[in-house]
Amino acid sequence: MPRLWWERPDLCYEDGRLRFAGHDVAMLAKEADGPLYLYSAARVRANIGRVRDALVATGTPFRIYYAMKANRHAPLLTMLAGTGLCGVDICSPGELDHAIACGFRPDRISFTGTGVAPRDLDRLLVHDALTINCDTIGMIRRIGERVPGRAIGIRVNPARGVGYDDSERLTYAGAQTTKFGIYREQWGEALAVARAHDLRITSLHFHVGCGYLDQQLDSWEAAIEAGLSFLADLPDARTVNVGGGLGVPHRASDSPLNLAKWAAALRRHFADRSVEIAVEPGDYLVKDAGMLVLGVTDVERKRDTLFVSVDGGFNLHPEPVFYNLPCEPVACVPRSADSANWQRCTIAGNINEALDLWAKDVAMPPQQENDFIAFLNAGGYGAAMSSHHCMRSHFIEMLLA
Amino acid sequence: MPRLWWERPDLCYEDGRLRFAGHDVAMLAKEADGPLYLYSAARVRANIGRVRDALVATGTPFRIYYAMKANRHAPLLTMLAGTGLCGVDICSPGELDHAIACGFRPDRISFTGTGVAPRDLDRLLVHDALTINCDTIGMIRRIGERVPGRAIGIRVNPARGVGYDDSERLTYAGAQTTKFGIYREQWGEALAVARAHDLRITSLHFHVGCGYLDQQLDSWEAAIEAGLSFLADLPDARTVNVGGGLGVPHRASDSPLNLAKWAAALRRHFADRSVEIAVEPGDYLVKDAGMLVLGVTDVERKRDTLFVSVDGGFNLHPEPVFYNLPCEPVACVPRSADSANWQRCTIAGNINEALDLWAKDVAMPPQQENDFIAFLNAGGYGAAMSSHHCMRSHFIEMLLA
Repeated sequence: MPRLWWERPDLCYEDGRLRFAGHDVAMLAKEADGPLYLYSAARVRANIGRVRDALVATGTPFRIYYAMKANRHAPLLTMLAGTGLCGVDICSPGELDHAIACGFRPDRISFTGTGVAPRDLDRLLVHDALTINCDTIGMIRRIGERVPGRAIGIRVNPARGVGYDDSERLTYAGAQTTKFGIYREQWGEALAVARAHDLRITSLHFHVGCGYLDQQLDSWEAAIEAGLSFLADLPDARTVNVGGGLGVPHRASDSPLNLAKWAAALRRHFADRSVEIAVEPGDYLVKDAGMLVLGVTDVERKRDTLFVSVDGGFNLHPEPVFYNLPCEPVACVPRSADSANWQRCTIAGNINEALDLWAKDVAMPPQQENDFIAFLNAGGYGAAMSSHHCMRSHFIEMLLA
Repeated sequence: MPRLWWERPDLCYEDGRLRFAGHDVAMLAKEADGPLYLYSAARVRANIGRVRDALVATGTPFRIYYAMKANRHAPLLTMLAGTGLCGVDICSPGELDHAIACGFRPDRISFTGTGVAPRDLDRLLVHDALTINCDTIGMIRRIGERVPGRAIGIRVNPARGVGYDDSERLTYAGAQTTKFGIYREQWGEALAVARAHDLRITSLHFHVGCGYLDQQLDSWEAAIEAGLSFLADLPDARTVNVGGGLGVPHRASDSPLNLAKWAAALRRHFADRSVEIAVEPGDYLVKDAGMLVLGVTDVERKRDTLFVSVDGGFNLHPEPVFYNLPCEPVACVPRSADSANWQRCTIAGNINEALDLWAKDVAMPPQQENDFIAFLNAGGYGAAMSSHHCMRSHFIEMLLA
């Protein structure tokens, strides 16, 4: 069988069967008898190691905060906490409790949220060592009223940003005004409010990309430069958090992000500054370390279309339907290695909505009932965003050692 | 204060405060201290009563199955079961268990699902009296293998359909081939498989609309006619289920569905047939009987835009973001009745995604921190589709008597 674009040593066919992290995927799926998320601990560690190596090459102190919202599977978080290689980025009090429960100390946790209610703030402020990045002037004021003199971070919006495939839906900063951070137009007021409460601004935060790859790196670098311009007003800043958003390939035509280029951009902008760099990768650490395996329930022509129906729908993983981020469908035990025998088909989920399609008009080896299909790149924003829609939320998650 | 388009006797301002089902909304929200779904039992009953009266006017026997996937709040289901006015439409084994737990007997339950796994079927077939509509030929065969001679329904796809605002995303049958039902092209094979297992086809099912209003009624009627053409081959059919999809107004420019016109279309097509009509309204019964009330966390200009941030995001109710179905935002205690004082603003949720906006550039009375905003038409596909994304899933649901 010829190698496919997504194959790599820990994820490939051997003797006609899909293997992932040393396991036979179809065998695990058969045992699970229902939707199954598989995550590879080794792949997550390899991904974080790659980011770490690239950051070492910048010659600047750094820290990595894993963005928990991508995947909060407890064994995965516990494993990450144990590596000592990263802290964790959180955005809600619930995530704070979960992070601590999974072994992250508060001084390794960074909060960056939006729409933060007073009751949320009360829970966050219990922990003096927690980094809290403020998203609004109101949040600065409310922290100042509760804990004058505290160290805070401020999230700014440099009005520049990038998204995967230049998608507007994934752009967090840019031409259109977004809800995130404090813009230059309100910066003076933000500083004044912080000063009025003796708050020390020790961290500058901006998140300017989502799923970016090499072709977005130039724009990303320009956004970094714009973000850093706020630093001139922050004499107490020790950390600049450049957010996350490092992307992974979703399609055969995507190339992996060149981390050396990425790090070189950071080196260019941080070499002469006495601050540490913080980054918040989420998807980059977990997305290609996970897959969702579903069972085939029907293979049947409807009018002119061959539908392959599977036993899980978009409520288990909304990215393909709602974010146009495909999860490559892969036959776990292909019935034919010869792509001349592959068939064009549409893979449909089991939710009663017309939009619930995993992939439209794709070429697959011939499928039969009870076969298994693995959907790749399902390690991030899959289980974490799943819902109980149609009471079809059941799945099993396994972290493979 | 002038009456607004959505006001009605049970949902309106009194003395400058929003009242719903006899309650002061802001007071309930203050007690809940977090996201709050309110449902009105009386409004649900009024909605079902209206559908019932319209169906009585057809002169044809009928039954109403409430589509549980719209809202499965147990007290609401229990109340519905108690009225005796409807059965329930389900699409998964989980919904079957829940329906029975809430007081619906199996003979009042109709299953119409897709991607139905053998393990699902085993759970459904425990109940002889359950109506099961088959979505694929494979499903017919699998039932035949397990319970030869059983009564079944078949879901057909008449290749015509309509959606709210003619949205393709909401169209379940039409020009584009969808995953649902059996098309005319495969009809002969479906009948042959049923015959081979002595299955009696007692029910014909088609679902051809989603959120339709008056302007879609002509197309809907044409789809009904196309669906009924399958009946000629079904001598045992006792019921024709025309699905759900009856819409409610989402915008000031929408008018309520004219149920008399709707029923007249049914009368035209069912008058000379000895079958009962089944309908499966979901949204129509619950959507305008529910609201989501959120608290304001920040009111703040960002660059050129006034953002009103609230303490709940799209994970609590995905329709505005992902289906382009707005939930009208309404101030619970408006600070000014004079719309000359209203401000253009964008209402943002508390999830760390740029797309998480409840409403863009809408006119609202001036907002302040700790105010409450009610989002109308949140009674259907809101809580039912909510997720734990960012660990922000907490909300309270209350069924108001």
